[in-house]
Amino acid sequence: MKKHNFNAGPSILPREVIEATAKAILDFNGSGLSLMEISHRAKDFQPVVDEAVALFKELLNIPEGYSVLFLGGGASMEFCMVPFNFLEKKAAYLNTGVWAKKAMKEAKAFGEVVEVASSAEATYTYIPKDYTVPADADYFHITTNNTIYGTELKADLDSPVPMVADMSSDIFSRPIDVSKYICIYGGAQKNLAPAGVTFVIVKNDALGKVSRYIPTMLNYQTHVDNGSMFNTPPVVPIYAALQTLRWVKAQGGVKEMERRATEKADMLYAEIDRNKMFVGTAAKEDRSRMNICFVMAPEYKDLEADFMKFATERGMVGIKGHRSVGGFRASCYNAMPKESVQALIDCMQEFEKLH
Amino acid sequence: MKKHNFNAGPSILPREVIEATAKAILDFNGSGLSLMEISHRAKDFQPVVDEAVALFKELLNIPEGYSVLFLGGGASMEFCMVPFNFLEKKAAYLNTGVWAKKAMKEAKAFGEVVEVASSAEATYTYIPKDYTVPADADYFHITTNNTIYGTELKADLDSPVPMVADMSSDIFSRPIDVSKYICIYGGAQKNLAPAGVTFVIVKNDALGKVSRYIPTMLNYQTHVDNGSMFNTPPVVPIYAALQTLRWVKAQGGVKEMERRATEKADMLYAEIDRNKMFVGTAAKEDRSRMNICFVMAPEYKDLEADFMKFATERGMVGIKGHRSVGGFRASCYNAMPKESVQALIDCMQEFEKLH
Repeated sequence: MKKHNFNAGPSILPREVIEATAKAILDFNGSGLSLMEISHRAKDFQPVVDEAVALFKELLNIPEGYSVLFLGGGASMEFCMVPFNFLEKKAAYLNTGVWAKKAMKEAKAFGEVVEVASSAEATYTYIPKDYTVPADADYFHITTNNTIYGTELKADLDSPVPMVADMSSDIFSRPIDVSKYICIYGGAQKNLAPAGVTFVIVKNDALGKVSRYIPTMLNYQTHVDNGSMFNTPPVVPIYAALQTLRWVKAQGGVKEMERRATEKADMLYAEIDRNKMFVGTAAKEDRSRMNICFVMAPEYKDLEADFMKFATERGMVGIKGHRSVGGFRASCYNAMPKESVQALIDCMQEFEKLH
Repeated sequence: MKKHNFNAGPSILPREVIEATAKAILDFNGSGLSLMEISHRAKDFQPVVDEAVALFKELLNIPEGYSVLFLGGGASMEFCMVPFNFLEKKAAYLNTGVWAKKAMKEAKAFGEVVEVASSAEATYTYIPKDYTVPADADYFHITTNNTIYGTELKADLDSPVPMVADMSSDIFSRPIDVSKYICIYGGAQKNLAPAGVTFVIVKNDALGKVSRYIPTMLNYQTHVDNGSMFNTPPVVPIYAALQTLRWVKAQGGVKEMERRATEKADMLYAEIDRNKMFVGTAAKEDRSRMNICFVMAPEYKDLEADFMKFATERGMVGIKGHRSVGGFRASCYNAMPKESVQALIDCMQEFEKLH
């Protein structure tokens, strides 16, 4: 049976990426060696990193003066690296979910943290809009897509101070005005690669401004200076990331990714709004194109387990909602084909007919 | 042509590990999904982590009261995590190479650091023996194998204070008395897995003794409490690590790995000592079984490039010595077959006959 992979992350990757990575693991570039056992200093591997960096810059239209880094540790490690590197006195955070809150918590050990707004009181079902970012903050931190709650900042905000963004779950799903940010970071395991590599886009001249000592590995400057090769980088995940970047470019780039994301999300939200058995959980204007959250309508609440079983039997994978929201979550990252979204819609319609 | 992979790291892995990983990337456990796109919370993946932890404990005979963690970032990240977690007032470090020195440098930001001894003045060609570890140190840090210089502590030391060891390049090559250590860590990319996962063996009751605030991701307790699942772990490298651990067990465990390592090292060192064209660089009693370093004898110095070409044409890969030592380095990790070591010896003998 064909599986439709709606996992929230690690999540669906293009089949081409999976096959190219498996092939390189058996034999990298016809070298007779596996991608798993080549040196990161090998002359064959440097071009992998170079091309991945170049494609990041090209696809996201990154201006001069920024570096692209590939690190380990995940976005959670960036939650402390960001204040280590940028927080001298005060930072502003927008609290739009558990991940935003975790990022804010780490920053509190480094200086004054201003929570400019929060939607915690409404289980993060919307993104706050009326707030003031202190003009004297070192940066304003946002989480552009909130995987658990299905809300998304689908356009770059205006801010009186430079922004830092966790874009773990919507990077490469739309064009970004990178010049508004001093740092954009994310775990790769949604739109980019398997788990194990973290991307960081950092503005070079925003570094070196804090007075504290920064441990070598936590200092972005270390990795800028060494082209992500200060120590051994995660070779296999970086190789897979390169395959995805090539795929994004071949498909038409981030504008095409945005068109597809909008098309898929519109299809599924239309069904959620039409189907009497289901209700969307996020405020309509803040609905995420990446993670589409919905629950059973109150009068069908008892049928939640039934629908889960019904959909699972039809090949749907990973549609269980996060425990803090309940219900269902269909993650529709770049690699998700429209046909899989249609298959889920078909499930919802068939299930409706049965009841 | 058959390639003989003497890379220092990332380095040779058993073919079974490579093939099992490539297979799981195409289809994990017959799930219809790639290992690269399954959730780390999937019910199929938790057993991978559980079995990897259990095999670590079994193969290394780890006593009760220790945790095994799989993190990102590499051993270089542990250089700061160790003092973050264990250094309250004073720590002792044995300086046996560049990696030991880097570990020591990071610790200096956290408290008093005593370099108990150093072989830096002799380009780290030996491991110091006469030194005193301060009895009031929080820990004594050693680097058990020095990849660049080809020296190795082949047995556990006695120390008046608990030890911390970087075992990146010799873990699983011999039995260890884990009870002597509060922390053993390493990058996986020598004897365990592809780059991208770091193992940490930590004594639970050694944690929580420092007074400083530790950022969440840098606190070992976070990962102990969450079974390495506080955030998304590097799924593919952990899966590959499990395959290697199974392989080590099937081959006879760490005692058998030690027997093979000794046999291979003895073969190659015997040839280095016999062959008039080559000279070993490390003090004989400290010679590493993992990284065997040698240079051309002074009267044949001009033939270094010739031998490199000669050996490369016969399938030898990664035998160039580190730039700080020069000459050649044959890394003979667990997965290196005796036949490859013999092939290198054959090269050395044929080259000798030519000159």
